[in-house]
Amino acid sequence: MITVDDIDDIAIGATVLGTGGGGDPHVGALIAKRLIGMYGAVTLMPVEELTAEDFVLPVGMIGAPSVSVERIMAESELVRVIELAERATGRKPTAVMPIEVGGGNSMVPIAAAALTGLPLVDADAMGRAFPESQMVSFHLAGYKPGATVMVDHHGNEVMMTPVTGPWSERLARAITTEMGGSATMIDYMFGGDIVREAAIPGTLTLAKRIGQLLSGRGAERTDAALLEVLTDELGAFHLFDGKVVDLERGFDAGFTRGKAMLDGIGAWKGSQYELRFQNEMLLALRDGQLSAVTPDLICILDAATAHPITTETLRYGNRISVVGIPADERWRTDIGIETAGPRYFGFDVDWQPVEQLSAQSRSASTDRSAS
Amino acid sequence: MITVDDIDDIAIGATVLGTGGGGDPHVGALIAKRLIGMYGAVTLMPVEELTAEDFVLPVGMIGAPSVSVERIMAESELVRVIELAERATGRKPTAVMPIEVGGGNSMVPIAAAALTGLPLVDADAMGRAFPESQMVSFHLAGYKPGATVMVDHHGNEVMMTPVTGPWSERLARAITTEMGGSATMIDYMFGGDIVREAAIPGTLTLAKRIGQLLSGRGAERTDAALLEVLTDELGAFHLFDGKVVDLERGFDAGFTRGKAMLDGIGAWKGSQYELRFQNEMLLALRDGQLSAVTPDLICILDAATAHPITTETLRYGNRISVVGIPADERWRTDIGIETAGPRYFGFDVDWQPVEQLSAQSRSASTDRSAS
Repeated sequence: MITVDDIDDIAIGATVLGTGGGGDPHVGALIAKRLIGMYGAVTLMPVEELTAEDFVLPVGMIGAPSVSVERIMAESELVRVIELAERATGRKPTAVMPIEVGGGNSMVPIAAAALTGLPLVDADAMGRAFPESQMVSFHLAGYKPGATVMVDHHGNEVMMTPVTGPWSERLARAITTEMGGSATMIDYMFGGDIVREAAIPGTLTLAKRIGQLLSGRGAERTDAALLEVLTDELGAFHLFDGKVVDLERGFDAGFTRGKAMLDGIGAWKGSQYELRFQNEMLLALRDGQLSAVTPDLICILDAATAHPITTETLRYGNRISVVGIPADERWRTDIGIETAGPRYFGFDVDWQPVEQLSAQSRSASTDRSAS
Repeated sequence: MITVDDIDDIAIGATVLGTGGGGDPHVGALIAKRLIGMYGAVTLMPVEELTAEDFVLPVGMIGAPSVSVERIMAESELVRVIELAERATGRKPTAVMPIEVGGGNSMVPIAAAALTGLPLVDADAMGRAFPESQMVSFHLAGYKPGATVMVDHHGNEVMMTPVTGPWSERLARAITTEMGGSATMIDYMFGGDIVREAAIPGTLTLAKRIGQLLSGRGAERTDAALLEVLTDELGAFHLFDGKVVDLERGFDAGFTRGKAMLDGIGAWKGSQYELRFQNEMLLALRDGQLSAVTPDLICILDAATAHPITTETLRYGNRISVVGIPADERWRTDIGIETAGPRYFGFDVDWQPVEQLSAQSRSASTDRSAS
């Protein structure tokens, strides 16, 4: 069950896994809480319980987070997009799920579940957040987006059947831009058997656990220790602490894109760190050397509170900790790297596992201090 | 009936009425002829025969003519777009019609009628060609686009329900751009009663008559006399003869846009003429004075053969005649001018009837020669 009391934990945890993207969860969390208050708690359904008779709708927002945070997600849009999905497929949904565990996009399906009374599948299709709509585990498993539906706050409704995932992204992005930069969308609707096979399980529970840790409820609360608890629990790597000394951020072709430069603090004093993002954090360089790169997760946390910071809320002067988390194994395959690896985003580097990069970096530091 | 022998006349006549836009009819004419050859002649249905039981599909291409002329209109796209219209509405079509009488877009519904065996309504929704999809007589009569379907040659399918005509244009144009600049589209699908009320009747027959005149089959064939026959038959005005001395043409936001400058020849020697277009010819100035302006028709004909020239095929050095034709009365109302008048396209002039502008211009010339 997901109750009102769980929402903030899930929102915080999903924002960590969202690697700076997926939208700010604040408005979404308020709406999810209100709808749970009105309609009751949401049933969280493990993927193992799904059968071929189930029909699962991944409900989310598409668009630049810059726009999403300024737009109240309307309940009427959720109702309309679900009705449209039914009309497009002729099937009654039996469950909803998040398409990604980004901040805002973890809240949208909770709101939809509360509103419709449908259970919420404890899984998502990224195991993190990614900027483009074909970057889903369904795509990696060879499934096409199928019937895809979008609504906006003007009342426009679009159903489409793109031939491939990349075509879905192109068309949906262009439509979203016209709709004002943000839309509510359902794609990759599948029977429960396919979701069980191809979704990334347990990610809402994981988000909740991370949120609990960061709220100090799952651990002895000492702010300094939070990051350690987090890295221990997630198999994560503490990559850098630094202060934002330069920040470029723009809105381009429906995305929030940019770059942040950090000056090291504490153990990292004297080092420089560069972060590149397109909605999500995609590439990190320490003193010009690769530190972590997509599809691995690059999470940005407030250095004092260990609370996640999105690419939207990042500010000049922020003191932040950078944490790397290995992506789900499905992203570390050839098709995973081809779909969401560094070269797809135009970075001229090969993917290397964050655990390996972190070990190299540590040994380099040791060498330096030894010399 | 429309037979193979009628196609070239309709294509030529529709290209005259298309005022430079609506796409080059050449490829469309070839396909229409081939399909009529395979499946038999097309039944032309007067609007008076339509009843409320009829369900009419306006089938056309959307996009910049520059792209359309390079892309063979595939029969499979016509089949798919009609199937999609059926699925979107749950209604069986009983007839097809042109959305506009532009060159290529007069051929598309003929091809669709041949392919499906459905009758072709002798009407269109513009009485000419216009660049934007809300510029239809249905919009002027207060009807919304309703279910709107689009397919491309990649296999992508889009159905949408835009809230208004202008929203349909925005979404469809963005989708078309992603699809590569051209798509097959059906919008403003209505029962026969609404088509009878709101469509512009008889325009395919008119196009055929113009084509016959220009082929010299409806008149004694002397090239010099063709233009005179044409202006007599259509209540048209011979506005200018000139040679193209400057031409700017670009592809921008899904449209072919540009400007042509003419140096007067014959009776117009010493005068300069400026033409502005966005797919269609929209504004004409003679020596800086308004000569004709949208929604009235500005038609560009080869000065020697009186055959129509599109904004795509216009070339430096062309010797052309400019002919103005009063638009259908529906375009000369407040909502007509608001929808497709000069200010909509960003020209800082008020619409004036071409017959009045032509009379002023003639009297000014008389004054000058008298002084």
